[in-house]
Amino acid sequence: MTTAARAAPLKLAITTGEPAGVGPELTAIALAGAAAHWPGVFFEVLGDAGLIESRARAVGVDWAALLAAGQVSVAHRPLAVPAQAGRLDAANGRYVLDLLDAAIDGALGGVFDAIVTAPLQKSTINDAGVAFTGHTEYLAERTSTARVVMMLTGTGARPLRVALATTHLPLKDVPGAIDIDSLVETIAIIDHDLRRDFGLPVPRILVTGLNPHAGENGYLGREEIDVIAPALALAAQRGIDVRGPYPADTLFQPRYLDEADCVLAMFHDQGLPVLKYATFGAGVNITLGLPIIRTSVDHGTALDLAGTGRADAGSMIAAIDTAVTMARNRRGG
Amino acid sequence: MTTAARAAPLKLAITTGEPAGVGPELTAIALAGAAAHWPGVFFEVLGDAGLIESRARAVGVDWAALLAAGQVSVAHRPLAVPAQAGRLDAANGRYVLDLLDAAIDGALGGVFDAIVTAPLQKSTINDAGVAFTGHTEYLAERTSTARVVMMLTGTGARPLRVALATTHLPLKDVPGAIDIDSLVETIAIIDHDLRRDFGLPVPRILVTGLNPHAGENGYLGREEIDVIAPALALAAQRGIDVRGPYPADTLFQPRYLDEADCVLAMFHDQGLPVLKYATFGAGVNITLGLPIIRTSVDHGTALDLAGTGRADAGSMIAAIDTAVTMARNRRGG
Repeated sequence: MTTAARAAPLKLAITTGEPAGVGPELTAIALAGAAAHWPGVFFEVLGDAGLIESRARAVGVDWAALLAAGQVSVAHRPLAVPAQAGRLDAANGRYVLDLLDAAIDGALGGVFDAIVTAPLQKSTINDAGVAFTGHTEYLAERTSTARVVMMLTGTGARPLRVALATTHLPLKDVPGAIDIDSLVETIAIIDHDLRRDFGLPVPRILVTGLNPHAGENGYLGREEIDVIAPALALAAQRGIDVRGPYPADTLFQPRYLDEADCVLAMFHDQGLPVLKYATFGAGVNITLGLPIIRTSVDHGTALDLAGTGRADAGSMIAAIDTAVTMARNRRGG
Repeated sequence: MTTAARAAPLKLAITTGEPAGVGPELTAIALAGAAAHWPGVFFEVLGDAGLIESRARAVGVDWAALLAAGQVSVAHRPLAVPAQAGRLDAANGRYVLDLLDAAIDGALGGVFDAIVTAPLQKSTINDAGVAFTGHTEYLAERTSTARVVMMLTGTGARPLRVALATTHLPLKDVPGAIDIDSLVETIAIIDHDLRRDFGLPVPRILVTGLNPHAGENGYLGREEIDVIAPALALAAQRGIDVRGPYPADTLFQPRYLDEADCVLAMFHDQGLPVLKYATFGAGVNITLGLPIIRTSVDHGTALDLAGTGRADAGSMIAAIDTAVTMARNRRGG
């Protein structure tokens, strides 16, 4: 990286997501604090300029003044049809994808240091005739990434971080989806990205078992013995500080967490209830393994709250904050 | 119940559990505060009198003075061989069961209002030639109870309570173990016992889904549609205030928990990581559905800490506290 590139200010893209949801207003609320929270960082908001301004007004943000201050700009991408808060319309499905594409292209092209995504509604895109299973999968495909890892975290000096070995699978399919190779790859991605983007020289990763009590020496399942322990041994041979498998119910205690940089849980509902309890509405969803930095809110479109100003911007602020930190670390690396 | 019975003071049995573990010393530490915490309640400690006294001394509790004060007594049951802290010995396996049997018989006979159990080591009992899968299963069998429900909780004005639809099963066996009938029975037991023993006239029970996002309308699994929702409808027809299924990762948030008396999770690692995180080493394990009241610590024998005085008595104190509250509610009912 050249000195000129290092010296350039950070620039983040924010996709405002589903236009009937809370994304546009949460973006406005979060960026109203940009000068105070993220001085020297520039933000390009992707979305319909009129929509964003009207939602900002609805929640009491002086959007025109914010734009005039120069730290925030809008890359106008027009809605297909006018959007109404709370009312999904498949006619705007491709608009949502267009925002995402513009952000990805900009990040791949070096225009953006990171992407922060507001929530979208999968059904709107699917109803528009585009097969779409989620932000994470779409980002992986558009960046030609074979494997990504979903990690959630909060903010703070030593935040709880929880990564998942499997994500959106029916529970019955989880045991069959975990094998030694995939687990080693997942651990290697976590290790790599925590070093590069989180400033952790030797991240310590603690891994849960799949079964209750981590299988209790095989009495409650054999995956710990047959799959997880061998995977951890292979990862350790690569120089990764990885430990486990630990019983999930006792792992989320200070005596473990105080020494951990990340917990790798085997499946969605093993790791996320405690993460979301701990982060209390201000969790951040991070996609590890991508060539670009991407963070997201950890909640949905909250259609019932759109336009009311009652949606909590805590997760959006934390997502931006995390992206800024990651981008700074990557630049500094 | 007669007036005389109501007027009699409460009497709790405490089984000191595995003699090589922390049970005896945690019992001593917890009961050292009996006069302050539970005035008017009597405690009968089941275990080897010499063992308990020596462990009490090791952790700085004046056991002789405590016994002399009259609120605590010991029902001496002799060890088979001397017990050493941290060293399991199958020769004492039947001793551990003997304590449990004495407590159960006393509770069934009306001598004890509740049983509080310190941790035992399953392997010690199994190595002694007795097939034993756990406290809960043993209590169910000895009291001829067809179905029990494991519930964990903390203490406090509005404690988080988490019950489990399945407990110690390999994860792959969980989906097949949940059916409509068993779920309705489980919900009915929770409702019944929360009314009788927790002073809740109409307990509200929130139920998780089995799959991520509670199956997302069938896209991530069908058990919510085919099993859980029908079970909740049947339970509601019986007049039970039960709601769900909710995505487990977003259920443990104030906007849900503030309105809930109990969360029913579908399996061990879906409900217990967050419960143990929230109760922070002071969780209580309660067996619902039994004819007798039984609470327990939510941790194991901690062999490495036995005799050191470093084990935290928070869970033991909370288990006694919960048993006292339950016994008072049952008496008052």
